[in-house]
Order: sequence, then C-alpha cells, then structure tokens
Amino acid sequence: MTTAVSDQDQPPGEEEASERVRGLLDIGAQLFAEKGFEATSMRDISQAAGVSKALLYHHFKSKDDIYARIAFLATQHLNTFVEERIPASGTAAEKVRAYMRASATFFAEHRTAWMAASTAFWSDPDRHRMEIRIARRRQFETRLRDLIREGVENGEFEPVDPAITGRLILSGINWMHRWWSPDGERSAQQIADDYADIILKGMIRRTS
Amino acid sequence: MTTAVSDQDQPPGEEEASERVRGLLDIGAQLFAEKGFEATSMRDISQAAGVSKALLYHHFKSKDDIYARIAFLATQHLNTFVEERIPASGTAAEKVRAYMRASATFFAEHRTAWMAASTAFWSDPDRHRMEIRIARRRQFETRLRDLIREGVENGEFEPVDPAITGRLILSGINWMHRWWSPDGERSAQQIADDYADIILKGMIRRTS
Repeated sequence: MTTAVSDQDQPPGEEEASERVRGLLDIGAQLFAEKGFEATSMRDISQAAGVSKALLYHHFKSKDDIYARIAFLATQHLNTFVEERIPASGTAAEKVRAYMRASATFFAEHRTAWMAASTAFWSDPDRHRMEIRIARRRQFETRLRDLIREGVENGEFEPVDPAITGRLILSGINWMHRWWSPDGERSAQQIADDYADIILKGMIRRTS
Repeated sequence: MTTAVSDQDQPPGEEEASERVRGLLDIGAQLFAEKGFEATSMRDISQAAGVSKALLYHHFKSKDDIYARIAFLATQHLNTFVEERIPASGTAAEKVRAYMRASATFFAEHRTAWMAASTAFWSDPDRHRMEIRIARRRQFETRLRDLIREGVENGEFEPVDPAITGRLILSGINWMHRWWSPDGERSAQQIADDYADIILKGMIRRTS
C-alpha cells in the first residue's frame, strides 16, 4: 500500500498515513494473512514490527482499527492500481481484460488488503471512513460496468447486461481467495486471462 | 436436509440421523444463518428447539459438532438434489444450465448448509467424516466438469477447458452468498440463468 490517501476523500481528522503507519499496516496485513485475523494479537504485530505495544497503541486504537485502516487504504490503492493498467485507447475487450488482469494481480500481491477491500458489508466503527470505503468499492465495480457498456454501445459487444456480466466477472476474481494458491500451476493473472477468454467469447459481437 | 445418510459412506459408529437429530440440525442451521455461528449458543439452539441442554448435549458434543454434521449431511443432500434435476436426455448445454439452476436453488433454500458444504478446507475434528465430506464436494465439482467435457466431445461446445470453465461457473454461484438477498429483484435461480446465458454463449460451437 504505497499510494498516499488523497486529501479529497480523507475522513475528518485523519492525518495522511505516515511512512511508519503504513509500515505497521503492511506488517499487520502480512500477519493477518499468515495467521488469520483472530489468531493475530497486537503483541504479535508490535513484535514483528520491532516497536513497543505502547507505540502501536499510540497509532491504532485496536486490532479492529488496524484492519479498518488496511481496508480503507486498500480500496483506494486498488482503484488506482487498476485504473493505471487500463489502456486509454484500445478496444473495450482489451480494457475489460486489462481490468481483470490488474484486479487479479492486486489480489495475488495484497491478499489481506484485497479481502478487506472486497468485504463491502464489513462494518467499520468509524462511520465516515466506512462510507468512503464503500463508495470506493462501488467506484471499482462501476468502472467495470462502464467498460462493458462502452463495448455494447460501440457495437463491439452483444447487448449484454453490464450489471450481471460485471457481477460474474468479479465473482470469478473474488472467489479466488478460496482456492487459488501462489504455489499452484497458474498465476492469478493467468486465471484472469482464462476467465476473460471464456466471458469475452460470449460477449464479442459475431460478424455474420 | 431430508435426505438420509446412505449406509455406504457412513462414518464408522455414526448412526443414521434420526428425525430428532435432523430437526435439531435444521434449527441449528437456521440460527447460524440468522445470528451467525459465533453469536449462536448451545442454549439458543436448545431453547429454539424446545429441548433441554442435556438432551442437546446427548446428541452433539459441541456447537462445532453440530456444524460439522450440518456440513456432512449438506454435501450429500446437495449432490442428490442437483443430480435429480439434471435431465438424463437433452443437450450438454441443457444439463449445464440445469446443474447451475439446481445449485443456485439449493443455495437459496439452505444457505447455512450450502456454506458449510462449500467450505472444503474447513476442518472437522472427525477426520473420517471430513474426508467423506471433501470427497462428496469433489464429486459435485467433477459432475460439472464431466457435463462440460460431454459437450466438448460431442461437438456441441467449443474446445473449452472443463476445469477452468467449471471453476468460473461455481465462482459465480459460490460468491452469491456475499451479495444476493432473498429480498432482491431476481431469484437465485434467475441469476444462475443469467450466468448460464453469458457462459454458454461463449461455449456453444458456432456453426458457420
């Protein structure tokens, strides 16, 4: 999570995440991924980071707070990461594929952050922070629907429903956390490509 | 969960689930669905069932044991439920669609049981019971791949990869538990139909 929080959608009173805070969040995310959220204690995080528990509690109210901030930063990081990888020119099919590959890559590289970001219903005690997170998540999903709509409108795709097609695409990527392993035969990006092959084949308009 | 456990794959020493046991499992599943597993106590289950805690503990060692038995019965029930709904004759496309509709229907009607059954990695203290559950889950996934392979071999489908196509189909259905609601506009079965439209469109061989 190297992307700084922009001023624009910063919760009131939340300072820009400092290097130290981001470092602690990265260590937290790594431990949650390895041991699971429940099994990870504040002591584990402070020990892994080589800081005192007092310092950890200076920056974060609780373990839940750490998770909430991982989720908050991750939603922004994800949107930026994906956006940067969608070619400005190119066909809608190329853009949809780029979106899928970028999402799968982000998932593979930041698994805890991805999970935190994709759990839209998960409740953050800081209501304003939660609303921003959910809005960013919606933006992520809307981006895909817009790409599909672009292809429908320019005649490149069959008249598919952008909402349900987008849902199926994101289900494929979201469900990867339940079965995909970095030790497996195919990278997350290759799986995304396989899925894109299947779905785009059904969407691309047949020239008769 | 009305399907009796067959003798064939019964764990040693496990009696066929009696009416009473099945009734208690149904009540447990309902409470887990409403309140969540963590928030549901053995006391809640005994009260909802109108039985004493002593009787509940006579049948089940613990709350984990209840969940494990829900998962165990559900995997069998799911396989039977889906199998009964796949037409013996018909095209491979019709069979794949029937499989998807049946799976989505089972999910909508038995959400806790579905979740328990679909969590293949979830660990049961009874190792033999767990192995049977995982074998049944594998059978469920293999059935779909076989239907896809049938269509590829009889020339009805393009030469798609049965494993990755099956994975995408099941991702769509498995991810429904994170967003689908019985109060929403479309039934689970309709969503499965929508997904079948998209995926089958890409699979069915184009006659030129």
